[in-house]
Formats: sequence, C-alpha cells, structure tokens
Amino acid sequence: MKLTNLDGRIIKLLSEDSRMPALRIAELLGEPESTVRGRINRLVEAKVIEFVAQTNPIEMGFSTWVMIGLKVVLADLSTIVAELEALDEVYFVAMTTGGYDVMFNAVFENNTELHRFIVEKLGAIDGIRETNTFHYLAVPKRKIAFLPISDHDKATERKRGTQA
Amino acid sequence: MKLTNLDGRIIKLLSEDSRMPALRIAELLGEPESTVRGRINRLVEAKVIEFVAQTNPIEMGFSTWVMIGLKVVLADLSTIVAELEALDEVYFVAMTTGGYDVMFNAVFENNTELHRFIVEKLGAIDGIRETNTFHYLAVPKRKIAFLPISDHDKATERKRGTQA
Amino acid sequence: MKLTNLDGRIIKLLSEDSRMPALRIAELLGEPESTVRGRINRLVEAKVIEFVAQTNPIEMGFSTWVMIGLKVVLADLSTIVAELEALDEVYFVAMTTGGYDVMFNAVFENNTELHRFIVEKLGAIDGIRETNTFHYLAVPKRKIAFLPISDHDKATERKRGTQA
Amino acid sequence: MKLTNLDGRIIKLLSEDSRMPALRIAELLGEPESTVRGRINRLVEAKVIEFVAQTNPIEMGFSTWVMIGLKVVLADLSTIVAELEALDEVYFVAMTTGGYDVMFNAVFENNTELHRFIVEKLGAIDGIRETNTFHYLAVPKRKIAFLPISDHDKATERKRGTQA
Amino acid sequence: MKLTNLDGRIIKLLSEDSRMPALRIAELLGEPESTVRGRINRLVEAKVIEFVAQTNPIEMGFSTWVMIGLKVVLADLSTIVAELEALDEVYFVAMTTGGYDVMFNAVFENNTELHRFIVEKLGAIDGIRETNTFHYLAVPKRKIAFLPISDHDKATERKRGTQA
Amino acid sequence: MKLTNLDGRIIKLLSEDSRMPALRIAELLGEPESTVRGRINRLVEAKVIEFVAQTNPIEMGFSTWVMIGLKVVLADLSTIVAELEALDEVYFVAMTTGGYDVMFNAVFENNTELHRFIVEKLGAIDGIRETNTFHYLAVPKRKIAFLPISDHDKATERKRGTQA
Amino acid sequence: MKLTNLDGRIIKLLSEDSRMPALRIAELLGEPESTVRGRINRLVEAKVIEFVAQTNPIEMGFSTWVMIGLKVVLADLSTIVAELEALDEVYFVAMTTGGYDVMFNAVFENNTELHRFIVEKLGAIDGIRETNTFHYLAVPKRKIAFLPISDHDKATERKRGTQA
Amino acid sequence: MKLTNLDGRIIKLLSEDSRMPALRIAELLGEPESTVRGRINRLVEAKVIEFVAQTNPIEMGFSTWVMIGLKVVLADLSTIVAELEALDEVYFVAMTTGGYDVMFNAVFENNTELHRFIVEKLGAIDGIRETNTFHYLAVPKRKIAFLPISDHDKATERKRGTQA
Repeated sequence: MKLTNLDGRIIKLLSEDSRMPALRIAELLGEPESTVRGRINRLVEAKVIEFVAQTNPIEMGFSTWVMIGLKVVLADLSTIVAELEALDEVYFVAMTTGGYDVMFNAVFENNTELHRFIVEKLGAIDGIRETNTFHYLAVPKRKIAFLPISDHDKATERKRGTQA
Repeated sequence: MKLTNLDGRIIKLLSEDSRMPALRIAELLGEPESTVRGRINRLVEAKVIEFVAQTNPIEMGFSTWVMIGLKVVLADLSTIVAELEALDEVYFVAMTTGGYDVMFNAVFENNTELHRFIVEKLGAIDGIRETNTFHYLAVPKRKIAFLPISDHDKATERKRGTQA
Repeated sequence: MKLTNLDGRIIKLLSEDSRMPALRIAELLGEPESTVRGRINRLVEAKVIEFVAQTNPIEMGFSTWVMIGLKVVLADLSTIVAELEALDEVYFVAMTTGGYDVMFNAVFENNTELHRFIVEKLGAIDGIRETNTFHYLAVPKRKIAFLPISDHDKATERKRGTQA
Repeated sequence: MKLTNLDGRIIKLLSEDSRMPALRIAELLGEPESTVRGRINRLVEAKVIEFVAQTNPIEMGFSTWVMIGLKVVLADLSTIVAELEALDEVYFVAMTTGGYDVMFNAVFENNTELHRFIVEKLGAIDGIRETNTFHYLAVPKRKIAFLPISDHDKATERKRGTQA
Repeated sequence: MKLTNLDGRIIKLLSEDSRMPALRIAELLGEPESTVRGRINRLVEAKVIEFVAQTNPIEMGFSTWVMIGLKVVLADLSTIVAELEALDEVYFVAMTTGGYDVMFNAVFENNTELHRFIVEKLGAIDGIRETNTFHYLAVPKRKIAFLPISDHDKATERKRGTQA
Repeated sequence: MKLTNLDGRIIKLLSEDSRMPALRIAELLGEPESTVRGRINRLVEAKVIEFVAQTNPIEMGFSTWVMIGLKVVLADLSTIVAELEALDEVYFVAMTTGGYDVMFNAVFENNTELHRFIVEKLGAIDGIRETNTFHYLAVPKRKIAFLPISDHDKATERKRGTQA
Repeated sequence: MKLTNLDGRIIKLLSEDSRMPALRIAELLGEPESTVRGRINRLVEAKVIEFVAQTNPIEMGFSTWVMIGLKVVLADLSTIVAELEALDEVYFVAMTTGGYDVMFNAVFENNTELHRFIVEKLGAIDGIRETNTFHYLAVPKRKIAFLPISDHDKATERKRGTQA
Repeated sequence: MKLTNLDGRIIKLLSEDSRMPALRIAELLGEPESTVRGRINRLVEAKVIEFVAQTNPIEMGFSTWVMIGLKVVLADLSTIVAELEALDEVYFVAMTTGGYDVMFNAVFENNTELHRFIVEKLGAIDGIRETNTFHYLAVPKRKIAFLPISDHDKATERKRGTQA
C-alpha cells in the first residue's frame, strides 16, 4: 500500500495516543472525520497499522523470555516457519541471515516449560539442525510503533547514500 | 503490581480489541464503568499494559531490519544499554545470556544507513568488544500482547514442574 | 515439597555438619527429637536432602575429569539423556540452553579411557550431532549444599526484582 | 595422600550410607572401631572425603541454575579464580581447556538476580574477556561420590592402555 | 546517477563486448554516434561503468589467493578501511555484517608473502581485534559485469515483494 | 600458458586503458601491430585476459549484495559448485578453506529477493549443511586487474622466501 | 614397555646424535656394547624409539602444509581414522578433544592438490560432518625427540601436583 | 637449496633406514662413497635433512599431549612466536591461517603441569588474546620423513593444475 501524506500524519498522531478518537484526529489535521475514519480503516485492513494492548510478559507471569536461533535444512525452511507460527508460545518469527536461518521469540512460565517446549514442540519439527537459546534477563526498551520515513528524510538520504 | 482476576479479564478483552471503550468492557464483565476505567488507568500507570498503534517497518519504508548482538566489557554493560536506549533507530534492547551480553533491534531505510549507524553511533560507545548483525529478510509473525497466566494454568504447571 | 521454617533451620544445621545426630539438632532448635527425626526422614524421602560422603575424583585416581557438551537431534533428546544417566562414568547430566542441548560431567582414569568412552559409549548413542569436551585442569571450589532462600531474602528480592 | 586398601573399603561403605556409624563400619570390615574412626578422621582431614547434606537447588527456591564459561586474560587467571571462589552464588569453579579458561556454576533465585550478578559481581572482576552463560533447564542425574579405582581395575587399564 | 533507457541498452551491448566501438553501438541502437559517445563518457565519469582488462591472478603467478575477514574496534573502522584500500595486495574491500566488520580480498605470490603481509602490514594497523583468512583453492566462476534491473523486472518484483 | 616478457608489457598497458587500440600499444612498445594483435588474441583465447565493462551493482539497482559461505557434504562439493555456477544471481564462486567449503557472491534487488533465492534456489541444492550470509554495506575498493609478477620480483621473493 | 635407567641414558645420547654407533654409546656409559645394542634393539622393537631422517616438507617441494580438523559421526570415528592413516598425503593423525574429534596433518605440492584431496579423498570417507583446514604459513620450530621424564622430575611433580 | 636427482635418491634410501652407512648407500646407487658422504653433509648443513631418534611422548611418561591454538595481537606475532620457541615444553610452532594465528604443540606429565604452563608461561607472554587447547587422546599415525616430489610428479601436476 502506498502511503499518502495524510496517512503519515494520522499515523504520527496515533503513535502518540493509540486510543485517540477519529474525531479528535480530524480536528487536529483539519480534515473531515469521515475522511480520517476511512483512512484509518484502510490502514488497518492493509495491516499497515494494528491497534494493540501491549503487555509486559514479566508482569503477566512469564519468567522465562527467550530468543531462539535455528539452523535448518533449507528445503524445509518454509514448513518450519509455518509450524513455528502456529505455536502459541511463539510471538515473533523472522527469516534471517548472519548465523541463523530463523530466529523466533517466545515466553514461558519458567525454565521447565521451556524445556518441555524444546523437547515436545521443537523436537517434533523436521529439518532443524541446531538451536541456540538466548535468555532475556532484562528488557529496558521495547517500542513497536514505527513512523513513516518522510519525503524530506528520503531526499536527505539520497544525497548521503551515494557512498556505497 | 499484583494482578487481580478482574485485571486479567479486562486485559483479555483489550487484547482482542485494544480500542474497545471502557463502557463496553464494563457491560461485558458486569462491572461498573468507573471500576473498569479505574483498573485500566492503574494498569497503564503501572506499565502493565500500553496502548500502541503497531506499524509494520517495511510498510513505513525501512528496508533494513536487524537484530544486533553485542559482546561487551561487563563493567560497561549498564552504560552501554543506556546509550542504546537513547538511540532513535533502536526500538528494543535486552540484556541476554547465550553468546551475547546485549541484543537489540533496529530499523533503517537501507544498508547505507545501517553502515552509518554502526560507524557513527555504535563506534562512539565505549566497551563494545564485538558486534554481530542479523538481517530480518521476512517477518511472518509478530504479536506483542501477552495474556496473564491463569490460576488454572499455574496449578497445572506446579504438578508438571517437579521434574527439574 | 513445601519447606517449613523448621525444615530450613534443620537444613542449615546439617549443612554445617551432615553427621550431626538428630538428638543434637533437637536440642539446638528446642524441638522434640521425634519431630526432628520425622522432618529429616521426610526431607530425605522427598529427595530435598541427601546425605553424601563426597570424595575428590583426583584423589580417587581419576586423572581425566571432563565436562562434555552435546548438540543433539531434538527428537532424540530424552532418550539420549536416559542413556547418559545409565553410564557409570557420568555423574551429572543437565539439559541446557546456550550452545549445547545437554551437558554432562564424567571422570576417567586417563585420556585413553576417555577416548574409549567417546568411541564405544557415545558412539553407540543415536542422535548426537556434535560433542565438545572440556578438561578440568584444577578444581579449587566444589560445594554442593544449598540453603533455602529465607523469607527475608524473598521480600528483598521482590522489591529489587521489578526492573525486568 | 596414599589410600590403603582399608581406606577404600571404608569409603565404599560410606558412599552407600554416609551417616553409618564408625562402629557399624568396624563390624562389617572386622576391624577395631578405633582403627576405623582413626582412618575416617585422616580421610576427612586430608579432604579425601567430605560429609555433606546435599540439597537440590530447585527445591531450595533457586529457579535459575547456570554454568558460566569465561575467556580471560591469562595473566589474571589465578586472581579471577580466587575472586570467583569468594562469591556466595558460586558453588563450583574449574580451570579448563576446550574453549573456556574457567567454568563455574552458580544458582540464583531468578533471572533478575543473575543479571545483577553479571553486572555487579562479574563486572567488578578485571581480566574477563568474554562470558557465556548456559542455563540448566533440568538435571536428571547428580551424583558426587566417587569410589577409588581398585587395583584390579588398574591392572586391567594398564593392559588396555597401550594403544595411545 | 539516474540511468536512462538508452544507458541500459548501451551497457547491455558493452557487457557483451567491452571493446565494441561507439560507432558500432550507435548503429545497433539507431542513435547518433555523438550521443552514444557522450553517454558512455558520462557513464564512465560517474563510475557507473569501468573498462577493465580483467586478468586471472593464478595465471599472473599469484598462487595464494585469499579472503580475509576482520573484527575491529568500531571507532577505528573507517581508518582501517582507508589503510586497507591503500595496500597494493588488496584488490577488494567491503564493510560487512554477519560475523566480520570488514572483508577484503588479496593475492600473494605464495604463503610466505601472505605471512609477511599479515605480520608487517596488518600488524601495523591499529584497531584490528581478530583476523580470519580463507584460502581460495579454485575459482570456477568470476563475472563482474552487472546489467541494470529492467523496468519490467521491477514491476514483477513489486508484486512478489509484499510478503515481508 | 607461459607468459613472455612482451605479454607482460602488453598486459600492463591494457590494465591502464583496456580500450587502447592494438596499433597504439604496438607504437608504445616498438613492436609490429600484427605481433601485438596476435599476442592479445592468444591472451584472450587462453583466458589470461578478459575485456570487461565492469559495472557497479548498487548503481544497477541491486541494493542487496552478499557473500554466502557454505559448509557442505564433501562428496557433493563438485555438484554443488556446478549448480551455483549456473545461477544468474551468483557472479563469483570459490572452493575455500578456513571455515567454509564454498564461498560465493551474489546480488539481489532487495532482501525479499535474497530470501526467495535462499528458499527456492539454495533450498533445491542437495548436500548443503549450513549457510552463512554476509551483507556488503559499502564497497570502497574494487579492482580486478592483476599484473604479472615480474622476474625481478620473483628473484627477490626467492631470497626472502627461505624462512618457512 | 617399562623404561630402565639405562634406557633413559641411551635415549638421551641418541637424541643428541641419532647416528652415534652402539660402540660409542657403550664407551660413554661404561656398559658392554652387546648390552647397549640389545637395549636399542628392544627400544626400537617396542616402538619406543624410531630412527628417522626428518626432512623439511617445504624444501621437498610441498608448498601447501595444513592441519585439518574434523567433526565426525562418533560411530564412524575408528573407521575414519583408519582411512586417514592409509592416505599418503597424511603424515600425522590424532583423536582429539576441544572442538574437533580428529586432527590430522598433510602436505601438498600446491593448493590445487589440496583441493583435489578434499574432493576426492575426504569426500570418499563416510561420516565426516565438518572439516576445517588451517594452513601453516611458517614453521619456525619442529622438534620430535622427547626425553623420558626422570625420577627426580617425577618426585618434584608429585609434591607440586596436589593442588588439583 | 636446489636438490639434485642424486640428493633425491639418497633421501629415499635414508627415509627407509636412517642409520644406513654412507658406504652402503654409495654401493646401492653406484656412486663413490666420498660423493655420497659429501652430499649427506651438505643436506644436513642446509637443514634439508635431520637425523632424529624419534620417541613416543606417551612412552616417555608424558600423559598430557596438546595442540594449542592462539589468537594474538598481530603486532606482537613475531615476538610471541619467538617466546614460544624458547619454551622446553613446546616442540612445534607454526604461524597459521584459518581461525588461529599461531598453533603449537607441547607435552606435559599431567594436566596439573599443563595448568601451570598456561598460568605461568603463557600468562607471561604479552599479546595473546585467546587460547584454545586440544588434547590428543590417541595418535595412531606419526611420520615425519617427506620425500622430494619427483620430476615426473611435477609434470603430472602441471597438466592437472590448470583448473584453478
């Protein structure tokens, strides 16, 4: 989806207060409420924006929070990713370069649950060659709203970007 | 903060629709609206819950999305984490075990911007011994709302958890 | 097993002198001997406490003392652990994260015996992908009695523990 | 200390029941009680044998159980080991080959305590180049009593041991 | 430099025969020779295209052909790259992610010359933490002319590229 | 092919200007044009020299430029190399020592194309055990013309080369 | 074979001059020549000592000198070692710990021969999981005669050796 | 030193029996004894050949036999190598590529001596960043006499060697 300038300004306001009503956004931007409401709906449908009540896994009672890197048989990569996506404990999955083919994040009530997950769930997936588990001991920053890069930024980039 | 049973039920509803008004939640749970509004405020103040308009970095124009692992001089660990937290490009920071002391995530418009970040920003932080950058090529799952572990779950866990 | 305050005080005394008679413990704690004897029996039956004559493997004539890390086929993890447990040379087995799936300790009379063990015993176990052997050259500290974390400690922890 | 044949037989009995009284051992071995008592005292003084009430760290409330490998500045190795020995959380320290210069074990109430330990205690020790932390998720075998290798075993070894 | 459609067609012809005269290119494309000559000059000045007599290092007498990966102090990265660029033996330098901060290629008459290079030239550069040298034993493919991605390709990409 | 002194002087001139006509080279070297033209043809036929219009992949629209290292089943090494050679995205392939069995370079329009390449193309090749992808963020030096080592150089080498 | 004091003194003399005649050794040690000759024969038959004309591989025309580390399927370890022993290029084979299961040394006329060896010879051996090749660029020390540890040394050792 | 055909034939005979008298070699080759004796002397003086009474370190009482890989500060490489050469325990030193800058071999009476060596000797050498120790558990092949590559071999090589 191609973002318009108006989309960008709406996203900026919602990133400051995700529960701000469409009416208030319309007032701040000087646009009709129906236009704003329509844009927000389109952004949500296109999965550009998603309204989320983000919770802290530690506060929710999960004391074991990990990132697991996998080396896999490449022919099985897509299947493995689909199987990981289907697991409740797994909340983030990425295909990656730099030492692991897949990295995913998961939370568990404790180390015993992590152990069970590795044996029963990962152990049941074909094509995993090697796993490496990284425990998160503390998470001081966690922000998930990204703003669109403005046209001004892009122009600046282009000038600086000639070095490579 | 100790979560009550009511907190848990409110979080469950908000995790399904983060923009659901307090009035609707109150109706669904059969509680006075003022009670629900009060609990939500407390949850937000205690940073147990945070309302977020989550956006997709790829759609926002960031084509370079990375996880960077750091090995550091342990005496500098706290300072390094504080410096990383202050950087705009960095949206997640964790202290970790398992091969890296710190792992953080960041997004960039392109590889040239990542290069500049490494040279200018990471290069200016003392105590980093080694960096390893993992590029996210695709991110098929990304979910950030965790529900509280219910008392029922906990009871179950306790019985199973005696093995270690 | 839920430890009582009395259990904790008994464990503390036994950790100082594991051969202290129940009668002496009862005197020191001001409890009837039958109570103390009963608690000790329960602690032993629940495997919370185990009375051991710990010996030094070097003094016993074992000149090769190792920790071996294994990367394994996850589907075979439980079987592999069971097979390792059954081996006389192996005195400690753990499922782990951080680069190895299993770590175990073993002692041998010399390197030739370690070599035979690797070829004949590990070589006979299916599902081992990679082994890495670490030799202990010197062991200046070796203590195996852990005291229960007191309630006072726990309260302190809880206040400090909110950072993650 | 050179172990006699009688020492070996005493150790064998104590390894089966570490609280067996000297009188009972004397009866079983057909030796005067004073002799047995004298040998036991000598074994304990020479630190060949140590009577321990071994407890399970998980049952004691420690949910984070780790092995930490260190790469260090070799000139600082002895000092580092001495500093680790002095730390309460650390119950085992070994100088090693095979990827780490030092490996040690420690237990913590939770990951937050481990984090504090890394920052405050390890961070205060000079000469550590790199740490790698392995979490124990489950410990199905844990035995610490080693029996002396018998003369018969030694003879057998010698014949087999000519291959290297 | 923004490439025109004509630039693309000129590059395509030169990639097939780099010594093709401008006159012949002009005939094939149905453009005036002066226009073609002018475009070629601009492409060369902008370093988009470079005419090279590529030679095979093995045939030239270099029996040691290597890729060397470096881990460096990030604050010194730019200086290190500049010093590597100035070395005659080094014919390719890249800043990289994925385990090394810098990778470069070089050729030597034999291993003794490589050894001298490591000691005298790399040893004189500050900020190198670690080097890893990979020897090329055989090079069955080596092609250095890249064609511009056509507009048609780009349209195709865009449709397929929505997955990330 | 054994290079003559004249070959060396021709290569030197062509390395300075690869489009220099044979006539001009003949004048500069004081040789008949037919001789020079004949030598150049032989050098090209023997693949000692190749005339190339080298282009910059970044300028051509490839924003993802990588080196990929492979660990492979050795019995499949030759087949794997042949399959890599046949892939359009791959412009350089080498058999190597030092951690990878094969290293190759490739360029892609973006990370999504790299992802597709890994899944569809590498995933279809049998015998690959492990891949590691290194992204080039910037390429400040890229030179591909090697001059023959002169006889003078060789004499010098021989004297210095006795140390190994 | 148990070495006598006379054996030790003979070995010491031969280590200084391996071509010293038995008669000269007998004179220096004040023993009958027949005794000395008899001891030497026994030492050679027991493979305790071997008379060798050691040559420098570089001087013999081998410009590629390597150590290759292997990770193998443990069940195949003994077979793999036997196959390596049978290869002419391989002059040293060891079963090892510390990251590789087997390490061996070999020499080749050049890198092309090493490449052929890896593809044709190592590629034909079953059970090799991973190889890593280390090139020797220079070998400043190479000594292969070890003297027996004297009784005096052993006594010293025993006193110092109690620390582990 | 340039080896003649006669040198090659002498080396071949000595490699079969290093104590063969010059007179016998002369007879077998049909050359005057004085010529053979002269060639042998020149080969020894040029260190092309060295007569050695090779002994087995295990038989000599060294139960700990290791290869140690070092990563070093490159500026200190030459000094480090010189210091290693001067150590009695070290019998082989090589500058290497492929993960370590230096590899050396050493033998020790036991692990305690190895430990002392690491702390006292390696710990006293500046510029060592990292050590990795590999223990040899068994050494089934150990041959140190290399024959010169014959002219016939070289001709064969040249034809096959064009592939790289």
